[in-house]
Amino acid sequence: MTDGRAQAAVELHGRSLIGGTFATEGADAFRGFSPSNGRELEPTYLSARPADIERAVTLAVEAAPFLASSTGKDRARLLRRIADGFDQSAEALIDRANQETALPRPRLTGEVARTSNQLRLFAVVVEEGSWVMARIDTADPARTPPKPDVRSMLRPLGPVAVFGASNFPLAFSVAGGDTASALAAGNPVIVKAHPAHPGTSELAGQVIAEAVAECGFPAGTFSLLFDSGHTVGAALVRHPHIKAVGFTGSFRGGRALMDLAAKRPEPIPVYAEMGSANPVFILPHALAERTEQLATGLHGSFTLGGGQFCTKPGLVFVPQAASDFSDKLRTLTEQGPAFSLLTGGIASLYDKQVAERATLRTASGTKASEGFSAQTALLETTYPAFASDPNLADEVFGPTTLLIHCASAAQMLEAARSLEGHLTATILGTEEDLSQNAELLRVLETKAGRVIFNAFPTGVEVCHAMVHGGPYPATSDGRSTSVGSQAIFRFARPVAYQGLPQSALPTALRDDNPEKILRLWNGAWTQPK
Amino acid sequence: MTDGRAQAAVELHGRSLIGGTFATEGADAFRGFSPSNGRELEPTYLSARPADIERAVTLAVEAAPFLASSTGKDRARLLRRIADGFDQSAEALIDRANQETALPRPRLTGEVARTSNQLRLFAVVVEEGSWVMARIDTADPARTPPKPDVRSMLRPLGPVAVFGASNFPLAFSVAGGDTASALAAGNPVIVKAHPAHPGTSELAGQVIAEAVAECGFPAGTFSLLFDSGHTVGAALVRHPHIKAVGFTGSFRGGRALMDLAAKRPEPIPVYAEMGSANPVFILPHALAERTEQLATGLHGSFTLGGGQFCTKPGLVFVPQAASDFSDKLRTLTEQGPAFSLLTGGIASLYDKQVAERATLRTASGTKASEGFSAQTALLETTYPAFASDPNLADEVFGPTTLLIHCASAAQMLEAARSLEGHLTATILGTEEDLSQNAELLRVLETKAGRVIFNAFPTGVEVCHAMVHGGPYPATSDGRSTSVGSQAIFRFARPVAYQGLPQSALPTALRDDNPEKILRLWNGAWTQPK
Repeated sequence: MTDGRAQAAVELHGRSLIGGTFATEGADAFRGFSPSNGRELEPTYLSARPADIERAVTLAVEAAPFLASSTGKDRARLLRRIADGFDQSAEALIDRANQETALPRPRLTGEVARTSNQLRLFAVVVEEGSWVMARIDTADPARTPPKPDVRSMLRPLGPVAVFGASNFPLAFSVAGGDTASALAAGNPVIVKAHPAHPGTSELAGQVIAEAVAECGFPAGTFSLLFDSGHTVGAALVRHPHIKAVGFTGSFRGGRALMDLAAKRPEPIPVYAEMGSANPVFILPHALAERTEQLATGLHGSFTLGGGQFCTKPGLVFVPQAASDFSDKLRTLTEQGPAFSLLTGGIASLYDKQVAERATLRTASGTKASEGFSAQTALLETTYPAFASDPNLADEVFGPTTLLIHCASAAQMLEAARSLEGHLTATILGTEEDLSQNAELLRVLETKAGRVIFNAFPTGVEVCHAMVHGGPYPATSDGRSTSVGSQAIFRFARPVAYQGLPQSALPTALRDDNPEKILRLWNGAWTQPK
Repeated sequence: MTDGRAQAAVELHGRSLIGGTFATEGADAFRGFSPSNGRELEPTYLSARPADIERAVTLAVEAAPFLASSTGKDRARLLRRIADGFDQSAEALIDRANQETALPRPRLTGEVARTSNQLRLFAVVVEEGSWVMARIDTADPARTPPKPDVRSMLRPLGPVAVFGASNFPLAFSVAGGDTASALAAGNPVIVKAHPAHPGTSELAGQVIAEAVAECGFPAGTFSLLFDSGHTVGAALVRHPHIKAVGFTGSFRGGRALMDLAAKRPEPIPVYAEMGSANPVFILPHALAERTEQLATGLHGSFTLGGGQFCTKPGLVFVPQAASDFSDKLRTLTEQGPAFSLLTGGIASLYDKQVAERATLRTASGTKASEGFSAQTALLETTYPAFASDPNLADEVFGPTTLLIHCASAAQMLEAARSLEGHLTATILGTEEDLSQNAELLRVLETKAGRVIFNAFPTGVEVCHAMVHGGPYPATSDGRSTSVGSQAIFRFARPVAYQGLPQSALPTALRDDNPEKILRLWNGAWTQPK
């Protein structure tokens, strides 16, 4: 069995996988490519046709009632089976992802583990069951007017469209957090694969489709559609039976999906994580005490994965007197390696944005001769110059960061107040710095989904408290997170049941609490006995 | 003090109330009017000017940090002070609301109590504090890589614009559920008063402004803007410093606000409750056993408040053999009173919609000679005729309902499957009926925010489990409720704090849990000691 699976997992079909069956035909053809040398990879992939989209949606609609009435234990079993399959296919996934993204193997090995751990985290959440936020207000027939029995819990939304991200070919792609959380909440999922890693996407899709079949879920629980461009994604977002969208990618792409969804006859929620410049504030005492450590840490963070993290620190506010820090950072930048970026488009945009900032460039790294190579760039400016050019606040995707020298704490605070929404905001300081800059912290928490003290933002822990979100334009919807167990709330809505007999209620709402979950019982949070 | 307040509460200024101060000038003039005779009421009201809007927003922005750092206890005090003021002004509020809406005094007396109870419910919720959904994942420095300390909780969004509704001049208006929940979550509120009850709005606004001042909150915590038309509301929804919108009203109005908000450079959430036709399914055994009781109940429900409830049962699916039920309902309709509708516009639209359905009319009530009078209308058709005319599924606001005679249980199920989103869906049946129609219940829970068994939908209990929401087009956002304590979640977003020292954390997230709230501690829901 394991052998059979391993073998199946390395055979690539180059076709959309619709409800467990590979499409036989397709629209236009395209191929994956290797960013390290720009060459195309086998096999040829065919974009999904309108009929393929329709079939995937129809199957998802048919699967929805089964998923909605499945138990948390059923779905936990499915999620764990996907996680196991992912781990078992790790070698094939890493090989192909390494070819398609040029991300180093150790990073991809970590990403496999992160992806399967994420699936298992949601398995634990739905198996335990309290995530449905059961609320029970019992009847009081003696009241005037009589008080009815009202009970509510979270229920799934229906078919969800998920867009794979280019920069995390595993953890934010086919079997990533959006798919895991949408399935966990009881929704069928249709993934639009990112065209920059179609082979990796297909391998992950095979793992999921196999798990769906083995666990006895309907075939329409999961489909994977390929597309060389934007047609399939747009058709999914416009489709009347799609009820929510998960996306990780560029601001332009995310906003386009938001606009499409808002113009539908029935607008639907779009959860788009659109990246950000992740401002960092380095405070004076910390700078003086740990110049070298901060420079090394920042360099590691802004060049991690070639600077292609949504949480890359792209704006670094430092005191004016940060010359040792700048010197160290320049040296590290000059001595660091070259990076292959994920796609030719990303590499061209990076070169263009760095060229536009040429006058601010104080150090450059090396450049490779082939593939989508990018030269690391350190940029520096003063706060007044930064404040006078709004373009400088934009995210530059790739291995660069901008140091902004501030004349005073007041200038740093002004900088913080002027920020748009970001995924993260970071303060590097001593506790003394922090207490002297309490207002800075208060301002930053209104600008970001996550406020970090004395760490770099590029690590995003997958846990219950994580918020990988933040106000627009970091995300489409600052009330949500795409990482951590709270991501499940994006794909559910509360439903109230009034006056239903016990036998007709979902088990989560029955008096005897057979699921043994936490519930709000007549206004008091009540643990199971 | 009480005398002074009572006196202040009956003096009407006819001006917007901006951060506790009445505007001195205004744009165009308009007046409230009496629906029972169509006559205008004193005083003249002036619409807010662009400068008034700007001032209200500027004050709200200034007040936001104070509110964001206020404690739940502080805000509970404010909410209770507003509730007390509301109760103390009950007589003036009821007098004026009765003049402006023609809703009967007993109904308005109940609505005052409902409004102040709602404010007190949110006071309890924020004083208790667990609503912030605190999540704490502690550090593990020994793990590879080291696990950071991450803690998250819900934080306010910023200034919220609230639109008063015409049909609940107290409970869904200036001091209604949207204002109460937005303030409770720690957001400043700017209300755009409904022009059909400006005097009632001003009285409620005075109560809130006085409470804000007495409790030491910044003046910008609350403002009330008048407008004869749509200019002020549109300007608020477009204003870059407004972060969310609460609205109860028509589908057309709600959708217009959704579209405005979606087109902003920074799109914001709009919570629009846009009404619905609230389908009711009467099953055979119940119909046979309690024909009279069901007819009387349905008649009372669809004519309550002149049929101007968002939860009015407007579509009633009955078995073909429901002739006794129809007969009884016709008699009740013919014998029932005439109703004054809230505005001339509502009355004209009602007459137009009933006229368009003239061939379906099987009984009519009486009509008054003056004011915005409406004649109760019972409409009847067959399921095939209903299915062939999509307009028949539309909400008709006013005292009418449509009986749809279904030939079979399969036809009822088909009807349920064809429904759009509604606030409520109701099954009237015996337990035997329910178990024979289990699929009907499963379908209806995907179509409504609240599924009701053996009661009529017009009562909306204000409690923890209530969901007054439902899929589009019943609301803009089916993931929310505008009634009950869960309404607070609309105006908050999660923020994560990573690596912060205890002293810099919000109290809800400190190790020692000084607020004694429920928290998710390393994945386990933990009650305070």
